[in-house]
Amino acid sequence: MKVFSIIALLHGVDRPGLVAKVSGWIFAHGGNILHADQHRDPEENVFFQRVEWSQPGEAMDVRGIATSFETMARHELGMDCRTTISPEQLRVGMLVSRIPHCLQDLTFRFRRGEMSGELICVLSNHPDLRQFCESMHLPFHHFEVKPDCKAEAEEAQISILKSQKIDLIILARYMQVLSARFVADAGVPIINIHHSFLPAFAGGRPYHQAFARGVKIIGATAHYVTAALDEGPIIAQDVVRISHRHTVEDLIRKGRDLEQTVFAQAVRWHLEHRVLVYKNKTVVFD
Amino acid sequence: MKVFSIIALLHGVDRPGLVAKVSGWIFAHGGNILHADQHRDPEENVFFQRVEWSQPGEAMDVRGIATSFETMARHELGMDCRTTISPEQLRVGMLVSRIPHCLQDLTFRFRRGEMSGELICVLSNHPDLRQFCESMHLPFHHFEVKPDCKAEAEEAQISILKSQKIDLIILARYMQVLSARFVADAGVPIINIHHSFLPAFAGGRPYHQAFARGVKIIGATAHYVTAALDEGPIIAQDVVRISHRHTVEDLIRKGRDLEQTVFAQAVRWHLEHRVLVYKNKTVVFD
Amino acid sequence: MKVFSIIALLHGVDRPGLVAKVSGWIFAHGGNILHADQHRDPEENVFFQRVEWSQPGEAMDVRGIATSFETMARHELGMDCRTTISPEQLRVGMLVSRIPHCLQDLTFRFRRGEMSGELICVLSNHPDLRQFCESMHLPFHHFEVKPDCKAEAEEAQISILKSQKIDLIILARYMQVLSARFVADAGVPIINIHHSFLPAFAGGRPYHQAFARGVKIIGATAHYVTAALDEGPIIAQDVVRISHRHTVEDLIRKGRDLEQTVFAQAVRWHLEHRVLVYKNKTVVFD
Amino acid sequence: MKVFSIIALLHGVDRPGLVAKVSGWIFAHGGNILHADQHRDPEENVFFQRVEWSQPGEAMDVRGIATSFETMARHELGMDCRTTISPEQLRVGMLVSRIPHCLQDLTFRFRRGEMSGELICVLSNHPDLRQFCESMHLPFHHFEVKPDCKAEAEEAQISILKSQKIDLIILARYMQVLSARFVADAGVPIINIHHSFLPAFAGGRPYHQAFARGVKIIGATAHYVTAALDEGPIIAQDVVRISHRHTVEDLIRKGRDLEQTVFAQAVRWHLEHRVLVYKNKTVVFD
Repeated sequence: MKVFSIIALLHGVDRPGLVAKVSGWIFAHGGNILHADQHRDPEENVFFQRVEWSQPGEAMDVRGIATSFETMARHELGMDCRTTISPEQLRVGMLVSRIPHCLQDLTFRFRRGEMSGELICVLSNHPDLRQFCESMHLPFHHFEVKPDCKAEAEEAQISILKSQKIDLIILARYMQVLSARFVADAGVPIINIHHSFLPAFAGGRPYHQAFARGVKIIGATAHYVTAALDEGPIIAQDVVRISHRHTVEDLIRKGRDLEQTVFAQAVRWHLEHRVLVYKNKTVVFD
Repeated sequence: MKVFSIIALLHGVDRPGLVAKVSGWIFAHGGNILHADQHRDPEENVFFQRVEWSQPGEAMDVRGIATSFETMARHELGMDCRTTISPEQLRVGMLVSRIPHCLQDLTFRFRRGEMSGELICVLSNHPDLRQFCESMHLPFHHFEVKPDCKAEAEEAQISILKSQKIDLIILARYMQVLSARFVADAGVPIINIHHSFLPAFAGGRPYHQAFARGVKIIGATAHYVTAALDEGPIIAQDVVRISHRHTVEDLIRKGRDLEQTVFAQAVRWHLEHRVLVYKNKTVVFD
Repeated sequence: MKVFSIIALLHGVDRPGLVAKVSGWIFAHGGNILHADQHRDPEENVFFQRVEWSQPGEAMDVRGIATSFETMARHELGMDCRTTISPEQLRVGMLVSRIPHCLQDLTFRFRRGEMSGELICVLSNHPDLRQFCESMHLPFHHFEVKPDCKAEAEEAQISILKSQKIDLIILARYMQVLSARFVADAGVPIINIHHSFLPAFAGGRPYHQAFARGVKIIGATAHYVTAALDEGPIIAQDVVRISHRHTVEDLIRKGRDLEQTVFAQAVRWHLEHRVLVYKNKTVVFD
Repeated sequence: MKVFSIIALLHGVDRPGLVAKVSGWIFAHGGNILHADQHRDPEENVFFQRVEWSQPGEAMDVRGIATSFETMARHELGMDCRTTISPEQLRVGMLVSRIPHCLQDLTFRFRRGEMSGELICVLSNHPDLRQFCESMHLPFHHFEVKPDCKAEAEEAQISILKSQKIDLIILARYMQVLSARFVADAGVPIINIHHSFLPAFAGGRPYHQAFARGVKIIGATAHYVTAALDEGPIIAQDVVRISHRHTVEDLIRKGRDLEQTVFAQAVRWHLEHRVLVYKNKTVVFD
């Protein structure tokens, strides 16, 4: 008999006995909890849990058990719940423009097996990164995105992403603002890397803004994309010190390292089902 | 009816159903889990848990419930278990020498209510810090510790600490090496702050060692004291960047800020029952 | 013959030969450069320098040499220049409200000799911290600051600060916004500690703002005060990681450590004449 | 007329007037100082300087001026001195084994123009990374290094590096210990990335050592290679927090990001002539 692992992410109104109920159910169904992490928001009275357990059985039976768990969580506990079974992996579509480092870094992380997901395709509004993608045997789709054809371009992008059954869209320094319609139609989460310590320096040219303000530390922020630009739930942030000696070009160079690692961390957490969104904030069970 | 909170720290051999059993027991006894955090060491097959729950009832009954929980954990689950009931607070005894900053910083943290414990007394092998302690109405005991009277001095120290029912001894830059006998006789945990990033630069004059080696980052380490000098389980560490511009004096000055915050963090975690020791390592449920 | 040290801070339009001229002048007048640090802003074509040299002689003669240097810098090099001679020390006045930790931390740093300046007096709009100041033999002045008497209170504050010949005003979590008039009349630099990573979360209750936005890192910022609230030149910043587990109270507690160290660092740099202000930014020769 | 820039690195016994002499000489020869940074070690009485200036003229004349400067520094100031003229670039040879991330990261940094040097060739004791190098059109040389043929392999490696006029050898997770003879015969600096916070966990399997000791922070160290393993002058270090939740595999994964950025930073500083070695320590003018 094989052994699979099931990951469940739950959240909903807190009430006594939730942990007992969840762990009791898993035990009663022959599972053994590998990791469990929970969080209570006492002000909002909300309970969050990520639980991962090993489940022996055939693939189909294990899928059935996961589905039963979801049903139990919804009906008996009143919790939102989604489950995933290893070795199922999310399918990732990447949007890029001209700046290569996040694309390059992420691609090699997927190749080295660091990311538990599958990088399916790259979409770009510029042809510049085609060569790199082809050298990596990564399907590359170029769409010209001009103001007068943006709606059509976005439709075409959505169409490819849907046909490829993409589960997660990631914006690797994609220099176009996605329309509210794209965000709604995509139907899957979208993760963006913004090159500042949000909420400071939202919008364009954040390194130039940071330089002008004279801050002593710069940052990068990975967040889910919502209709409001740079205001979605923050998943990960990191910072690095700068001084008066650093030019804008230095900030851009130092920022690249931040962008790569923060972006990779956020994408990895999402792919491992470690992130719950709630009230425009995230709970990250890392 | 009052509501108390009970904190239990458990660890022992992992087996299926532990979480279910613990949470089921609490639920069945009228408790509601406020925080729960667990950890499995898959290599050693050991399970660790910290669980905090609210328990309505009279003080004596709640004490009884906590004791029942301990008994259940030991007999039914085969786990080591200790519990504490708020608002019980640990009693802290501090050993110091001449360097004041950790004493001063910690004292004000206790006064501001940052530390959930009670600072009972200060013992020193030098009279220098008496004035500060007296200005803070903090009992100060001076013991001359010379090579030929160290054993007697340590006995006298232990005697005071025992008579004051001290639960935790903290070494706030205490410049004497405690004898193995002191460590054994104390009968309570001892936390030391070492002014280096252990295991680098154990022993004396770590800032001088760091300067001589030309490292680019210095650190501080809070650890439990064992008979082996600077080799006990590490609780907390932090670091700060330095450069060739910094003299040994600069390292000492910059290190002070590290020492204070790392030490305070480790002591706070211990006082909140967040630290489990296992195989000369710590599990910190922060 | 005694040996003094002179520190000169210069800035002005860059042109070839400035370093040669400055160092040649010092050499020709019997000085020996101990430290020199310079910075060029190529976009603005501005040159900044901090130079510290040893100068043998009697106090009066050394004062004369420093003055000659200033005159030379202004007339021959067209540079802004100010000099200071050790062991001259700046006189510091502190404004506080009710929150004690920055006051306590700074006071002990001055007492331990970490700060090369003199802490002269504490002014407060609340009586709460009087007891601490008196226990430290630190003159404490209480001014009630209500909306209808703010102008008078500020005048009285200025009057004390002037009578005490204060060279630097520091706001150690002072919870009143200084009027533009106070800033202008003070006639000396004012350093504030703001409990956020500026420019994020300017204004009131920054920890509550940070909590609501769901950031993963919080910070503290020390800056010179200008008429525009929280928009003056930034001197120092630091940050610490937080997670969904942290409540607003945790943010406030963790932030305290940041506030203390960032504030102390900025004040120390100012007292050691390491900070030049230029275009609402700072050059810090640390 | 063209304008070149000259960088000079000097160090030697400190004496009054050095800065004046250097800056006066440059000014007198028509140069304009762009950046200058200096450091005095008061204990050892040694002076260090990096000075970069613009020098108009034809290439040959500028080379002559740089040479004159070196001569002046040696004879008149008694200083060690080396100069370089932009756009001269150092030629870099990389040694790798099987672990790809440092090779991949560095290669793309060179391609993106982040590193002011030229990556000439890759030498390896394993064939695994050949494919990547060939896809990047990077010459790849494979040498089997077995205990009984190590001397011959090293000779062959040295021979290629010499024939390619390599100025800097970098060890990108090269898993062989270089012999003292290799280090001596190479005749150029060698930079290694060690995957621990040296001096902690020198030698093999540092992540396993760190895991066993239970440290709360891990690090990476870039250093010049000397005959003593992991004891050469440290150029750059960085760290990242870990907890009891992290397995050895997590440490290895998190460490990769550190290794890449620390290694790239050290190599970049070297290529920009920012590093001086002195008494097994480095002065880094960053």
